[in-house]
Amino acid sequence: MATFMDKGALQDRIKVQGELVRQMKKEIKPKEEIQAEVSKLLELKKQLGSDADGASGKFVLKCPKGTRDYDPFQMAIREGVFDVIKRCFKRHGAVSISTPVFELKETLTGKYGEDSKLIYDVADQGGELLSLRYDLTVPFARYVAMNKIKQIKRYHIDRVYRRDQPRMTLGRYREFYQCDFDIAGDYDLMIADAECVRVISEILSELQLGNFLVKVNHRKVLDGMFEACGVPKEKFRTICSAVDKLDKTPWEEVRKEMVDEKGLAPEAADKIEGYVKLSGGKKLLDMLLADQALIAVKDAATGLDEMKLLLDYCELFGVLDNVSFDLSLARGLDYYTGVIFEAILTGGNSGDTKSEVPAVGSCAGGGRYDGLVGMFDAKGKQVPCVGLSIGIERVFSILEARAKGVGGKSVRTVETQVFVASAQKNLVEERMRVCRQLWDAGLKCEMMYKKNPKLLNQFQYCEKELVPLIVIVGEDERARGGVKIRDSVTRAEEFVLYPDLVGEVQKRL
Amino acid sequence: MATFMDKGALQDRIKVQGELVRQMKKEIKPKEEIQAEVSKLLELKKQLGSDADGASGKFVLKCPKGTRDYDPFQMAIREGVFDVIKRCFKRHGAVSISTPVFELKETLTGKYGEDSKLIYDVADQGGELLSLRYDLTVPFARYVAMNKIKQIKRYHIDRVYRRDQPRMTLGRYREFYQCDFDIAGDYDLMIADAECVRVISEILSELQLGNFLVKVNHRKVLDGMFEACGVPKEKFRTICSAVDKLDKTPWEEVRKEMVDEKGLAPEAADKIEGYVKLSGGKKLLDMLLADQALIAVKDAATGLDEMKLLLDYCELFGVLDNVSFDLSLARGLDYYTGVIFEAILTGGNSGDTKSEVPAVGSCAGGGRYDGLVGMFDAKGKQVPCVGLSIGIERVFSILEARAKGVGGKSVRTVETQVFVASAQKNLVEERMRVCRQLWDAGLKCEMMYKKNPKLLNQFQYCEKELVPLIVIVGEDERARGGVKIRDSVTRAEEFVLYPDLVGEVQKRL
Repeated sequence: MATFMDKGALQDRIKVQGELVRQMKKEIKPKEEIQAEVSKLLELKKQLGSDADGASGKFVLKCPKGTRDYDPFQMAIREGVFDVIKRCFKRHGAVSISTPVFELKETLTGKYGEDSKLIYDVADQGGELLSLRYDLTVPFARYVAMNKIKQIKRYHIDRVYRRDQPRMTLGRYREFYQCDFDIAGDYDLMIADAECVRVISEILSELQLGNFLVKVNHRKVLDGMFEACGVPKEKFRTICSAVDKLDKTPWEEVRKEMVDEKGLAPEAADKIEGYVKLSGGKKLLDMLLADQALIAVKDAATGLDEMKLLLDYCELFGVLDNVSFDLSLARGLDYYTGVIFEAILTGGNSGDTKSEVPAVGSCAGGGRYDGLVGMFDAKGKQVPCVGLSIGIERVFSILEARAKGVGGKSVRTVETQVFVASAQKNLVEERMRVCRQLWDAGLKCEMMYKKNPKLLNQFQYCEKELVPLIVIVGEDERARGGVKIRDSVTRAEEFVLYPDLVGEVQKRL
Repeated sequence: MATFMDKGALQDRIKVQGELVRQMKKEIKPKEEIQAEVSKLLELKKQLGSDADGASGKFVLKCPKGTRDYDPFQMAIREGVFDVIKRCFKRHGAVSISTPVFELKETLTGKYGEDSKLIYDVADQGGELLSLRYDLTVPFARYVAMNKIKQIKRYHIDRVYRRDQPRMTLGRYREFYQCDFDIAGDYDLMIADAECVRVISEILSELQLGNFLVKVNHRKVLDGMFEACGVPKEKFRTICSAVDKLDKTPWEEVRKEMVDEKGLAPEAADKIEGYVKLSGGKKLLDMLLADQALIAVKDAATGLDEMKLLLDYCELFGVLDNVSFDLSLARGLDYYTGVIFEAILTGGNSGDTKSEVPAVGSCAGGGRYDGLVGMFDAKGKQVPCVGLSIGIERVFSILEARAKGVGGKSVRTVETQVFVASAQKNLVEERMRVCRQLWDAGLKCEMMYKKNPKLLNQFQYCEKELVPLIVIVGEDERARGGVKIRDSVTRAEEFVLYPDLVGEVQKRL
């Protein structure tokens, strides 16, 4: 038998040993026994020659790295955001579907290019190999292919998982929500695509996130541009992913990557520079349509014609002012085939709240992916698709900060309408009876779970949670066959008889 | 180097090789190259001496075992159920929180007894060891301890994961929803516990699931009963888990397990039989309170006193009729310390739909767990808790079958209020303009993504999706400065001018 273990096996061994020690501590084993196992553990760690994580035996009370809990305040905001988004998706006739949080590993294989390394796998405990979903688009395409659907417009709001380096201050998490809206079906050019731009615009406007811009571009325009600049065909994809970095990286660095790392001819890079600096509206389009070198390339000409249609339709939908045709937009994902878009928040005033919104960059994206469903079909049958995804985490950070800020609207975390209180002892049963009456009428009602709570505590709760009405039960009132209703704001109190209670409460709400 | 691989390593190797072959096929590599790798794969499989799963190179289009997609019809029903449940939780003053789908593995360790083997682990890809949550209760307790919360009433509706043998016809999945409502805080006896019973009753009533029964029992009554029957203390837990099987297994088998497998004295088993056959209401309680052998045991006396209080409170809350004190109820989970309860559907008429509901058994459960939060606190500080969990999958199956059945209410999957159609060609831009007007007014509106769709197709869509209004654009109407509005039901059509369109549509909705 081998006495040598490789690093992986050693790490595994350390984990098991660490688990054993933790277990023994939990079981409160004799100290000597635990110490013996700790010694073995330390010996193993010495072999590894490093401080292996997770083997310290210390119990850590936390969420996994890159994830977070939502507290009631955050949940109230989140629900509000989801409401706005859902209502918009429904306003555009989308149905809702839901897929499992994990997929067969092979369903995700080959869809995300280099990013595949960020996929979370489920441990192989026998049975199928599974991975947590990386986005909602690939599961949607799998759903469409599996059910042989030819046309569907659906939304799906759910969490996705990426083992990325978390930067939580920037709203980058390992578990985060995506709000997706997609239109699948073989339709005429750009109508559905333009509706996606409209949907993004409606949502960003309604959420009052300040100014925003929906950058649009087209895979074919990009490819045509590369060809016109003399980029060899086999370098299209790698040069495209260099261009994709332009929103975060200065041109000089991107140029260096193209020329030094990726072996692009310097004159080709210079020509690309001339294009990727361009952004604008219909005028830019006209300028490009007059660019003979560019429109001599078939892909470019096709792409530009389609862009013209897109901009026309965006105008009809009333959203052209927020659209910018941007030749530097080159979204990374492999599966896009036509129009691509990305929305960025550019700061400014938020509307009725009069607060300034920071410019936080990208908060939505999407595009056309006509080939993805076909990858799942046994016969390669295609179903063209276009869709968008709202990344809610950054939006959420803005709204959370706003709600916490001065002048922010107060956010209620409970919806309680009536609190049933008592000023005297021995009235718990009376309070329960009254609660029953109110619940039976469908009213939102609470009482304290103490037999004899202090009146002050009950009032404080109502003040903190903005409960509008308080029903006060008391011995005198009971003797007279009723209770008092107190208005939390005016503090006015009025006696009402039991049979009138529900009606009187409803009248005041 | 070793030429021999053990079975695990061989299986891993086969997986990698299978993946490689699949990849090559996707990349459409030359046939000979692929064939060479397939040969290697077959050789490896021969070594393993079996048909290893997942290495066949065949692409399977499916959801992972024990999971499912929800289609739009199912989603519409599901949303309706969640609405009812959420409204009830809010009616009782609960806030909402959310926790990540996975937890640190050690957070779940030691909470589920034997069921721990059903926990899904996330693959160790470096970093922390993670597991998918098994329920919402343990993450809740972790949240309470981590944030040092002393009082909270929260609900949480989300999915949990169990690597159980799926029985999808019975509504048992590996990924399924739980709808949890919990009250944490140091309160007076049984008030919060009784509200949990009330919450279950409200929800099951409102969902119109026929007759139901909330079985209740108490850990201390069970323990006291075991002591009174002469069960040795160290056998309490194992005998309790035998009793837990009584809802599915006849007494004779359970007795055999107790006596033959678990070494219980036959006379003790016989005494237990006398008790676990009992169920009822206040009369049963009085009978047990008069049982001198039983109330001589301190735990039993305490438990029975608390049960008396619970039944009294249930009566005040108006739900006693649905409550059954059942001495055979013995929920499996380790963490319960006081009252336990479980709701079962017993069949019968569903209410206004007049359809029969099958008796599908357990659909909700819960109880008091005063020790769980303390397991997460560094100083062991306790926060007493009581809560319930609605298992939605069985409920969902019933409602789905009902909606599909004769006389079932039709379920709309889209909420579209107006469809913008055209009878003639070349009116796509006109339709877009009208859609914009309707969307701007917040109306739910759709059009077809074809330039020249057939009128029949447009009408058929509206009929299928129950869209109440159709706006018909046409050249004549445009020339007159307006459109026609058609009522889908009466088929009446009326001309309206553009400026009146929104108002006229709103009037008709």
